[in-house]
Amino acid sequence: MHHRRAMFIFAITLLLPVLALGQKSDSAVKAAVEKVLHLQQDAWNHGDLEGFMSGYWNSPELTFFSGAKMSSGWRATIERYRKTYQGEGREMGHLEFSDLNVQVLSADAAFVRGAWELTLSDGKKPHGLFTLVFRKFPEGWRIVHDHTSKAEE
Amino acid sequence: MHHRRAMFIFAITLLLPVLALGQKSDSAVKAAVEKVLHLQQDAWNHGDLEGFMSGYWNSPELTFFSGAKMSSGWRATIERYRKTYQGEGREMGHLEFSDLNVQVLSADAAFVRGAWELTLSDGKKPHGLFTLVFRKFPEGWRIVHDHTSKAEE
Repeated sequence: MHHRRAMFIFAITLLLPVLALGQKSDSAVKAAVEKVLHLQQDAWNHGDLEGFMSGYWNSPELTFFSGAKMSSGWRATIERYRKTYQGEGREMGHLEFSDLNVQVLSADAAFVRGAWELTLSDGKKPHGLFTLVFRKFPEGWRIVHDHTSKAEE
Repeated sequence: MHHRRAMFIFAITLLLPVLALGQKSDSAVKAAVEKVLHLQQDAWNHGDLEGFMSGYWNSPELTFFSGAKMSSGWRATIERYRKTYQGEGREMGHLEFSDLNVQVLSADAAFVRGAWELTLSDGKKPHGLFTLVFRKFPEGWRIVHDHTSKAEE
């Protein structure tokens, strides 16, 4: 009897961290993911494209869907941003995210639905929606896939 | 010594199914998710919008982003499809998915990147990209979020 009880306690000790993980992670994951998005927004609004890009997985496997254009890899993604927002006669403008909804999918995966709006110096406000897939890496939560679309003007 | 060995075997017996799950699920999940997409494509190409919609989570929490338009709920999503593809002078056309890439995120979550193309009777081929988030429910794998965008013509 003594040993059965010991085995029971041993089994519970093994399983508890697994069960606790499910409880803990939801709010902690949401906070971690939202922090990445806020850092991205702040970086953008300080004209810091590299800072903004630090929210993305630095990998050739990162994917970025913009409308019907597909980019693969962190380098292609930053190049696309440079061309679109830092080219001749372009500006980054002021970026606002809204309607953020983070859904936790597992201890190392989440997705985010949200809306974006840029305010440009001429008063124009291009805007649209995005879907982001986040994974957790040793360096933190990073976007592994971004699907962004823009309202037709 | 005997009891320590028993406890070790007991612990391994508890942990093995957890470890096995990770191995098994990837290919099984990919196959299950791809099956839903093939059923959707077939249903669409038989003019069966209800069949196509059976791939979506039948819930008010389903979300559908099309360009910069957000729909919430299964009903709003099927209504949007009816209006866009079954209204006066509209047609469903022939649907093809391509470049499907299924990424497994956990035992009950996955996301899919892909491209879509419709062939209409006048020869026009509207096309674009999609990102789908799938979750596993008792009834099977269902899309809980769809972000679809269309190439500008």
